[in-house]
Amino acid sequence: MLGNTYDTQVCSIARTLEVVGERWTLLILRDATFAGTSRYIEFQRRLGIATNVLSDRLDGLVQQGLMVRRGGDRDGVDYDLTDKGRDLTTALAALTEWGDRYAAPDGPPIVYSHGTCGGAVRTALVCSSCGKNVDRADVHAAPGPGMPFEHLERMKSFRRSSARRDPQTSRQVS
Amino acid sequence: MLGNTYDTQVCSIARTLEVVGERWTLLILRDATFAGTSRYIEFQRRLGIATNVLSDRLDGLVQQGLMVRRGGDRDGVDYDLTDKGRDLTTALAALTEWGDRYAAPDGPPIVYSHGTCGGAVRTALVCSSCGKNVDRADVHAAPGPGMPFEHLERMKSFRRSSARRDPQTSRQVS
Repeated sequence: MLGNTYDTQVCSIARTLEVVGERWTLLILRDATFAGTSRYIEFQRRLGIATNVLSDRLDGLVQQGLMVRRGGDRDGVDYDLTDKGRDLTTALAALTEWGDRYAAPDGPPIVYSHGTCGGAVRTALVCSSCGKNVDRADVHAAPGPGMPFEHLERMKSFRRSSARRDPQTSRQVS
Repeated sequence: MLGNTYDTQVCSIARTLEVVGERWTLLILRDATFAGTSRYIEFQRRLGIATNVLSDRLDGLVQQGLMVRRGGDRDGVDYDLTDKGRDLTTALAALTEWGDRYAAPDGPPIVYSHGTCGGAVRTALVCSSCGKNVDRADVHAAPGPGMPFEHLERMKSFRRSSARRDPQTSRQVS
Protein backbone atom coordinates (compact mmCIF):
# COMPACT_ATOMS: atom_id res chain seq x y z
CA MET A 1 0.00 0.00 0.00
CA LEU A 2 3.03 2.27 0.12
CA GLY A 3 5.26 2.88 -2.83
CA ASN A 4 7.96 0.30 -3.17
CA THR A 5 10.68 2.70 -2.06
CA TYR A 6 12.81 -0.15 -0.82
CA ASP A 7 13.38 -2.12 -3.99
CA THR A 8 17.04 -2.37 -3.22
CA GLN A 9 16.45 -3.36 0.40
CA VAL A 10 16.41 -7.12 0.74
CA CYS A 11 15.12 -7.14 4.27
CA SER A 12 11.99 -8.39 5.93
CA ILE A 13 11.66 -5.21 8.01
CA ALA A 14 11.60 -3.19 4.79
CA ARG A 15 9.01 -5.51 3.27
CA THR A 16 6.84 -5.42 6.38
CA LEU A 17 6.97 -1.64 6.32
CA GLU A 18 5.82 -1.63 2.71
CA VAL A 19 2.63 -3.34 3.91
CA VAL A 20 1.99 -1.78 7.32
CA GLY A 21 4.51 1.08 7.62
CA GLU A 22 1.94 3.80 7.09
CA ARG A 23 1.10 4.97 10.56
CA TRP A 24 -2.70 5.03 10.35
CA THR A 25 -2.51 1.45 9.14
CA LEU A 26 -0.68 0.38 12.29
CA LEU A 27 -3.16 2.28 14.45
CA ILE A 28 -6.08 0.53 12.72
CA LEU A 29 -4.37 -2.81 13.39
CA ARG A 30 -3.77 -1.80 17.01
CA ASP A 31 -7.48 -1.09 17.56
CA ALA A 32 -8.48 -4.31 15.82
CA THR A 33 -5.96 -6.41 17.76
CA PHE A 34 -6.17 -5.01 21.28
CA ALA A 35 -9.59 -3.31 21.44
CA GLY A 36 -11.46 -5.82 19.27
CA THR A 37 -12.67 -3.05 16.96
CA SER A 38 -14.20 -4.29 13.72
CA ARG A 39 -16.97 -1.88 12.72
CA TYR A 40 -16.07 0.86 10.22
CA ILE A 41 -17.83 3.60 12.19
CA GLU A 42 -16.04 2.61 15.38
CA PHE A 43 -12.60 2.82 13.73
CA GLN A 44 -13.62 6.25 12.47
CA ARG A 45 -14.66 7.51 15.90
CA ARG A 46 -11.73 6.00 17.80
CA LEU A 47 -9.10 7.32 15.39
CA GLY A 48 -10.74 10.65 14.47
CA ILE A 49 -9.54 10.07 10.89
CA ALA A 50 -11.05 11.37 7.63
CA THR A 51 -13.37 8.78 6.09
CA ASN A 52 -11.58 8.74 2.73
CA VAL A 53 -8.25 8.03 4.47
CA LEU A 54 -9.81 5.34 6.65
CA SER A 55 -11.53 3.64 3.70
CA ASP A 56 -8.29 3.69 1.74
CA ARG A 57 -6.31 2.12 4.60
CA LEU A 58 -8.93 -0.55 5.32
CA ASP A 59 -9.18 -1.42 1.61
CA GLY A 60 -5.40 -1.75 1.56
CA LEU A 61 -5.46 -4.11 4.54
CA VAL A 62 -8.10 -6.24 2.78
CA GLN A 63 -6.08 -6.27 -0.46
CA GLN A 64 -3.00 -7.38 1.45
CA GLY A 65 -4.93 -10.13 3.20
CA LEU A 66 -4.60 -8.76 6.74
CA MET A 67 -8.35 -8.15 7.08
CA VAL A 68 -11.55 -9.43 5.54
CA ARG A 69 -14.57 -7.24 4.94
CA ARG A 70 -18.08 -8.37 5.72
CA GLY A 71 -21.47 -6.65 5.72
CA GLY A 72 -23.28 -4.10 3.64
CA ASP A 73 -23.19 -0.30 3.55
CA ARG A 74 -20.10 1.54 4.72
CA ASP A 75 -21.12 2.40 8.30
CA GLY A 76 -22.51 -1.08 8.98
CA VAL A 77 -19.56 -2.93 7.48
CA ASP A 78 -17.08 -4.88 9.61
CA TYR A 79 -13.40 -5.52 9.04
CA ASP A 80 -12.04 -8.62 10.78
CA LEU A 81 -8.39 -9.55 11.22
CA THR A 82 -7.13 -12.63 9.43
CA ASP A 83 -4.30 -14.78 10.83
CA LYS A 84 -1.90 -12.72 8.72
CA GLY A 85 -3.16 -9.58 10.47
CA ARG A 86 -3.20 -11.14 13.93
CA ASP A 87 0.38 -12.29 13.44
CA LEU A 88 1.46 -8.67 13.88
CA THR A 89 0.39 -8.82 17.54
CA THR A 90 3.91 -9.23 18.94
CA ALA A 91 5.26 -6.42 16.76
CA LEU A 92 2.48 -4.09 17.96
CA ALA A 93 3.10 -5.13 21.57
CA ALA A 94 6.84 -4.49 21.21
CA LEU A 95 6.27 -1.00 19.76
CA THR A 96 3.84 -0.32 22.64
CA GLU A 97 6.37 -1.48 25.23
CA TRP A 98 9.03 0.89 23.94
CA GLY A 99 6.56 3.80 23.94
CA ASP A 100 5.45 2.94 27.47
CA ARG A 101 9.06 3.11 28.62
CA TYR A 102 10.23 6.19 26.75
CA ALA A 103 7.24 8.26 25.69
CA ALA A 104 4.55 7.86 28.36
CA PRO A 105 5.32 10.42 31.10
CA ASP A 106 2.02 9.68 32.90
CA GLY A 107 2.48 5.91 32.73
CA PRO A 108 1.14 3.43 30.18
CA PRO A 109 -2.24 4.49 28.71
CA ILE A 110 -3.16 0.83 28.35
CA VAL A 111 -1.79 -2.12 30.28
CA TYR A 112 -1.68 -5.65 28.91
CA SER A 113 -2.07 -8.55 31.29
CA HIS A 114 -2.01 -12.33 31.07
CA GLY A 115 -5.63 -13.51 31.23
CA THR A 116 -4.64 -16.73 32.98
CA CYS A 117 -2.68 -15.26 35.91
CA GLY A 118 -3.04 -11.47 35.68
CA GLY A 119 0.70 -10.80 35.31
CA ALA A 120 1.99 -8.03 33.04
CA VAL A 121 2.62 -9.15 29.45
CA ARG A 122 6.03 -8.36 27.97
CA THR A 123 7.71 -9.11 24.66
CA ALA A 124 10.92 -11.10 24.53
CA LEU A 125 13.41 -12.79 22.25
CA VAL A 126 13.28 -16.53 22.80
CA CYS A 127 15.30 -19.41 21.39
CA SER A 128 13.21 -21.92 19.46
CA SER A 129 15.78 -24.62 20.19
CA CYS A 130 16.72 -24.38 23.90
CA GLY A 131 13.57 -22.40 24.83
CA LYS A 132 15.50 -19.82 26.87
CA ASN A 133 15.05 -16.06 26.71
CA VAL A 134 17.78 -14.62 24.50
CA ASP A 135 19.76 -11.55 25.50
CA ARG A 136 19.80 -9.11 22.58
CA ALA A 137 23.61 -9.05 22.66
CA ASP A 138 23.57 -12.83 22.10
CA VAL A 139 21.72 -12.64 18.75
CA HIS A 140 23.85 -13.67 15.78
CA ALA A 141 22.77 -12.41 12.33
CA ALA A 142 23.76 -14.33 9.21
CA PRO A 143 22.61 -14.30 5.57
CA GLY A 144 19.63 -16.60 4.94
CA PRO A 145 18.33 -18.36 1.80
CA GLY A 146 16.54 -15.19 0.61
CA MET A 147 19.72 -13.09 0.42
CA PRO A 148 20.74 -12.56 -3.23
CA PHE A 149 24.33 -13.30 -4.15
CA GLU A 150 25.19 -9.72 -5.14
CA HIS A 151 23.98 -8.39 -1.78
CA LEU A 152 26.01 -11.02 -0.01
CA GLU A 153 29.16 -9.92 -1.83
CA ARG A 154 28.46 -6.28 -1.04
CA MET A 155 27.94 -7.05 2.65
CA LYS A 156 31.14 -9.09 2.76
CA SER A 157 33.11 -6.20 1.33
CA PHE A 158 31.59 -3.84 3.93
CA ARG A 159 32.50 -6.24 6.68
CA ARG A 160 36.08 -6.53 5.48
CA SER A 161 36.54 -2.77 5.23
CA SER A 162 34.89 -2.24 8.63
CA ALA A 163 37.03 -4.92 10.21
CA ARG A 164 40.13 -3.14 8.99
CA ARG A 165 38.97 0.06 10.65
CA ASP A 166 37.65 -1.43 13.86
CA PRO A 167 38.01 -4.97 15.22
CA GLN A 168 34.94 -4.56 17.48
CA THR A 169 32.45 -5.60 14.81
CA SER A 170 31.62 -9.09 15.97
CA ARG A 171 27.84 -8.40 15.68
CA GLN A 172 27.98 -7.53 12.00
CA VAL A 173 26.25 -9.74 9.50
CA SER A 174 28.86 -12.38 8.78
CA MET B 1 11.00 13.74 14.09
CA LEU B 2 7.62 13.36 12.45
CA GLY B 3 4.82 15.85 12.85
CA ASN B 4 2.70 15.17 15.89
CA THR B 5 -0.22 13.92 13.83
CA TYR B 6 -1.42 11.80 16.72
CA ASP B 7 -2.13 14.43 19.36
CA THR B 8 -5.47 12.85 20.06
CA GLN B 9 -4.05 9.34 20.16
CA VAL B 10 -3.14 8.43 23.71
CA CYS B 11 -1.29 5.30 22.81
CA SER B 12 2.29 4.17 23.13
CA ILE B 13 2.30 2.74 19.61
CA ALA B 14 1.36 6.19 18.28
CA ARG B 15 4.06 7.83 20.37
CA THR B 16 6.68 5.30 19.30
CA LEU B 17 5.76 5.93 15.67
CA GLU B 18 6.21 9.66 16.18
CA VAL B 19 9.85 8.92 17.03
CA VAL B 20 10.73 6.01 14.74
CA GLY B 21 7.77 5.64 12.36
CA GLU B 22 9.57 7.15 9.39
CA ARG B 23 10.74 4.14 7.43
CA TRP B 24 14.32 5.16 6.71
CA THR B 25 14.70 5.72 10.45
CA LEU B 26 13.71 2.11 11.19
CA LEU B 27 16.08 0.85 8.48
CA ILE B 28 18.93 2.87 10.00
CA LEU B 29 18.13 1.33 13.39
CA ARG B 30 17.97 -2.13 11.80
CA ASP B 31 21.47 -1.78 10.37
CA ALA B 32 22.83 -0.39 13.63
CA THR B 33 21.18 -3.13 15.72
CA PHE B 34 21.71 -6.25 13.64
CA ALA B 35 24.65 -5.42 11.37
CA GLY B 36 26.61 -3.34 13.88
CA THR B 37 26.78 -0.42 11.44
CA SER B 38 27.95 2.83 12.99
CA ARG B 39 29.92 4.78 10.37
CA TYR B 40 28.04 7.43 8.39
CA ILE B 41 29.49 6.35 5.06
CA GLU B 42 28.52 2.72 5.70
CA PHE B 43 24.90 3.62 6.43
CA GLN B 44 24.94 5.59 3.20
CA ARG B 45 26.28 2.70 1.13
CA ARG B 46 24.11 0.03 2.72
CA LEU B 47 20.88 2.00 2.39
CA GLY B 48 21.59 3.78 -0.91
CA ILE B 49 19.94 6.86 0.56
CA ALA B 50 20.53 10.54 -0.32
CA THR B 51 23.05 12.11 2.05
CA ASN B 52 20.73 14.96 3.09
CA VAL B 53 18.00 12.47 4.03
CA LEU B 54 20.45 10.25 5.91
CA SER B 55 21.95 13.20 7.82
CA ASP B 56 18.47 14.42 8.73
CA ARG B 57 17.39 10.99 10.04
CA LEU B 58 20.62 10.43 12.00
CA ASP B 59 20.40 13.92 13.52
CA GLY B 60 16.82 13.13 14.54
CA LEU B 61 17.90 9.89 16.20
CA VAL B 62 20.59 11.80 18.12
CA GLN B 63 18.09 14.51 19.16
CA GLN B 64 15.69 11.83 20.39
CA GLY B 65 18.45 10.11 22.37
CA LEU B 66 18.46 6.84 20.39
CA MET B 67 21.99 7.40 19.07
CA VAL B 68 25.07 9.35 20.04
CA ARG B 69 27.41 10.91 17.52
CA ARG B 70 31.16 10.71 17.80
CA GLY B 71 34.03 11.71 15.55
CA GLY B 72 34.88 14.48 13.17
CA ASP B 73 33.96 15.18 9.57
CA ARG B 74 30.80 13.70 8.09
CA ASP B 75 32.24 10.60 6.39
CA GLY B 76 34.43 9.69 9.36
CA VAL B 77 31.73 10.22 11.96
CA ASP B 78 30.12 7.32 13.87
CA TYR B 79 26.62 6.99 15.26
CA ASP B 80 26.28 4.54 18.15
CA LEU B 81 23.04 3.21 19.60
CA THR B 82 22.17 4.18 23.15
CA ASP B 83 20.17 1.88 25.46
CA LYS B 84 17.05 3.75 24.32
CA GLY B 85 17.89 2.83 20.72
CA ARG B 86 18.89 -0.75 21.53
CA ASP B 87 15.59 -1.22 23.38
CA LEU B 88 13.86 -1.31 19.99
CA THR B 89 15.56 -4.64 19.22
CA THR B 90 12.52 -6.80 19.97
CA ALA B 91 10.22 -4.54 17.92
CA LEU B 92 12.62 -4.74 14.96
CA ALA B 93 12.89 -8.52 15.35
CA ALA B 94 9.09 -8.87 15.47
CA LEU B 95 8.65 -6.79 12.29
CA THR B 96 11.34 -8.95 10.65
CA GLU B 97 9.62 -12.16 11.70
CA TRP B 98 6.33 -11.11 10.13
CA GLY B 99 8.08 -10.12 6.89
CA ASP B 100 9.97 -13.42 6.83
CA ARG B 101 6.66 -15.26 7.08
CA TYR B 102 4.55 -13.24 4.67
CA ALA B 103 6.80 -11.25 2.37
CA ALA B 104 9.94 -13.31 1.74
CA PRO B 105 9.14 -15.71 -1.13
CA ASP B 106 12.78 -16.87 -1.34
CA GLY B 107 13.09 -17.40 2.40
CA PRO B 108 14.46 -15.06 5.06
CA PRO B 109 17.22 -12.77 3.72
CA ILE B 110 18.81 -12.78 7.18
CA VAL B 111 18.47 -15.40 9.89
CA TYR B 112 18.89 -14.65 13.57
CA SER B 113 20.28 -17.32 15.83
CA HIS B 114 21.01 -17.71 19.52
CA GLY B 115 24.75 -17.27 19.99
CA THR B 116 24.82 -19.69 22.93
CA CYS B 117 23.13 -22.71 21.28
CA GLY B 118 22.62 -21.81 17.61
CA GLY B 119 18.81 -22.13 17.69
CA ALA B 120 16.58 -19.79 15.71
CA VAL B 121 15.60 -16.64 17.59
CA ARG B 122 11.88 -15.81 17.74
CA THR B 123 9.85 -13.09 19.42
CA ALA B 124 7.17 -13.97 21.93
CA LEU B 125 4.73 -12.55 24.44
CA VAL B 126 5.75 -13.65 27.93
CA CYS B 127 4.16 -13.17 31.33
CA SER B 128 6.37 -11.25 33.76
CA SER B 129 4.60 -12.94 36.66
CA CYS B 130 4.32 -16.67 35.87
CA GLY B 131 7.07 -16.60 33.23
CA LYS B 132 5.05 -18.56 30.68
CA ASN B 133 4.64 -17.74 27.00
CA VAL B 134 1.32 -15.95 26.54
CA ASP B 135 -1.06 -16.86 23.74
CA ARG B 136 -2.14 -13.67 21.96
CA ALA B 137 -5.80 -14.56 22.56
CA ASP B 138 -5.05 -14.59 26.31
CA VAL B 139 -3.91 -10.95 26.44
CA HIS B 140 -6.28 -8.69 28.40
CA ALA B 141 -6.12 -4.94 27.67
CA ALA B 142 -7.23 -2.43 30.30
CA PRO B 143 -6.77 1.33 30.78
CA GLY B 144 -3.52 2.20 32.61
CA PRO B 145 -2.45 5.22 34.68
CA GLY B 146 -1.63 7.27 31.57
CA MET B 147 -5.17 7.08 30.16
CA PRO B 148 -6.89 10.49 30.51
CA PHE B 149 -10.35 10.48 32.06
CA GLU B 150 -12.12 11.82 28.94
CA HIS B 151 -10.66 9.03 26.79
CA LEU B 152 -11.73 6.47 29.35
CA GLU B 153 -15.31 7.72 29.21
CA ARG B 154 -15.29 7.66 25.40
CA MET B 155 -13.96 4.10 25.34
CA LYS B 156 -16.58 3.00 27.87
CA SER B 157 -19.35 4.42 25.71
CA PHE B 158 -17.93 2.60 22.65
CA ARG B 159 -17.82 -0.64 24.57
CA ARG B 160 -21.41 -0.28 25.73
CA SER B 161 -22.67 0.47 22.24
CA SER B 162 -20.59 -2.38 20.76
CA ALA B 163 -21.81 -4.79 23.40
CA ARG B 164 -25.39 -4.03 22.47
CA ARG B 165 -24.64 -4.85 18.84
CA ASP B 166 -22.48 -7.89 19.36
CA PRO B 167 -21.83 -9.88 22.53
CA GLN B 168 -18.57 -11.31 21.10
CA THR B 169 -16.43 -8.38 22.23
CA SER B 170 -14.66 -9.90 25.21
CA ARG B 171 -11.26 -8.72 23.99
CA GLN B 172 -12.21 -5.04 23.91
CA VAL B 173 -10.54 -2.61 26.29
CA SER B 174 -12.67 -2.90 29.42
